[in-house]
Amino acid sequence: MALITETSLRALLIKGIPDPFPVAEGDKLTPAAADFLKGRGIPIRRCGEEPAKLPGRTEAGNLHIPVGVSSRHAHLSPEHVEALFGRGYSLTPMRELSQKGQYAAHETVTLIGSKGIIQNVRILGPSRGATQVEISRTDGFALGVHPPVRLSGQTEGTPGITLAGAKGTVVLPEGLIVAKNHVHMPPSDAMRFGVEQGDRLILQTTGERPVIFAEAAIRVNERFTLDFHIDTDEANAAGLSTGDAVRMIGKNGEITGSVRG
Amino acid sequence: MALITETSLRALLIKGIPDPFPVAEGDKLTPAAADFLKGRGIPIRRCGEEPAKLPGRTEAGNLHIPVGVSSRHAHLSPEHVEALFGRGYSLTPMRELSQKGQYAAHETVTLIGSKGIIQNVRILGPSRGATQVEISRTDGFALGVHPPVRLSGQTEGTPGITLAGAKGTVVLPEGLIVAKNHVHMPPSDAMRFGVEQGDRLILQTTGERPVIFAEAAIRVNERFTLDFHIDTDEANAAGLSTGDAVRMIGKNGEITGSVRG
Repeated sequence: MALITETSLRALLIKGIPDPFPVAEGDKLTPAAADFLKGRGIPIRRCGEEPAKLPGRTEAGNLHIPVGVSSRHAHLSPEHVEALFGRGYSLTPMRELSQKGQYAAHETVTLIGSKGIIQNVRILGPSRGATQVEISRTDGFALGVHPPVRLSGQTEGTPGITLAGAKGTVVLPEGLIVAKNHVHMPPSDAMRFGVEQGDRLILQTTGERPVIFAEAAIRVNERFTLDFHIDTDEANAAGLSTGDAVRMIGKNGEITGSVRG
Repeated sequence: MALITETSLRALLIKGIPDPFPVAEGDKLTPAAADFLKGRGIPIRRCGEEPAKLPGRTEAGNLHIPVGVSSRHAHLSPEHVEALFGRGYSLTPMRELSQKGQYAAHETVTLIGSKGIIQNVRILGPSRGATQVEISRTDGFALGVHPPVRLSGQTEGTPGITLAGAKGTVVLPEGLIVAKNHVHMPPSDAMRFGVEQGDRLILQTTGERPVIFAEAAIRVNERFTLDFHIDTDEANAAGLSTGDAVRMIGKNGEITGSVRG
């Protein structure tokens, strides 16, 4: 908080007056000081009033993250693999996923809800400790069930669903979620992006449906490959497909300086 | 661009030094000037580096806009109403919509694509000059057709679709779109929001899937009711339902000062 007078500006004149002249929030210019600047064609820039610019859609930058779109899928416990496909059965890998060691299996299940069914739901392997089924909110309307948005593994208090496989069914008491969007990063990328586990990333898309994901979770692990995982609703709302990229423009509610116009 | 020296700061001292001391982008402090400020406990605020804050999710503000979620629907020309439902037929209003004079009709059509069909697609009335069918990107995958994102009425060069009604079919040569998200505003609201037709609004959601729609179109008309129209993909990606609200936090790529932390 200061009063900026013509005298103080004249004192600066010897060494050069900033152009534009920065004025902090709460500072006051005397009328003579304002005229003094105006007479020299020096605009005033009030720090607090400068609008934050979203980065241009074609702006260069290296904080890009590849997009991976996850369709509805199921992770099964070894017990549920056997219940659905027969005693002693193990999943058959069909296609490797972007995260090392993960694969889409040949096997699929049918989800059975109170309002409808969804067939050909891909199983992802390898099998896990607890069965978890990830659907989109759109799928939830078709099935008649409305699971909360959760990170993988956080299934306490979520609804269940009935699964049918080639040799049996499983009535899952809980484990149905809509996946919260999240970024997988190896530590080297976390360092490059200046982020750590627990941060909420602000990610901008640049397609024909420009959307900003305001609170993407981040998971950092040596085994991870850089990837932004979204579900099909998010992909369709933003016009994104696997292989597209989003750009990090900030974190934890702040759009960072590096990306401002 | 200026060199800020200890001498110029001392000259300011008489009248009071801004605290924090604003420094414009490109300005340089001499080491002595930096020490001078440091010795007085006055921090430097670089205008260009100040991070833009996204508004908090519970922050007050009156720039809220109610959300209207549009499911897939068809607008029919009078000729196509007759082709689909019989000579001399007119639509039967079932439910008024938020925009005055618009209604959902009792009648529905089936959309027939190369990969699948979608039944029970609502017709909106009254009938229009040209038939237009609005689907989500998700619907496009089910039908096997991928229309561009367009504002209503901008159907040049869009794909067509086959419609089946109770009494006939129409093979539409063009007119299938994914609706671009847009805000309806009466002029009084446009004045209150400080926006005009042609602006691109930045709209923030505050649900369990926080998303920012970065370029919402705006249409201003005396007959309009304040409403942000999104499709089901956008609603599901943002966890929104009709009756929820979004908040305007800026326009034309700039997050405005009024909403910054």
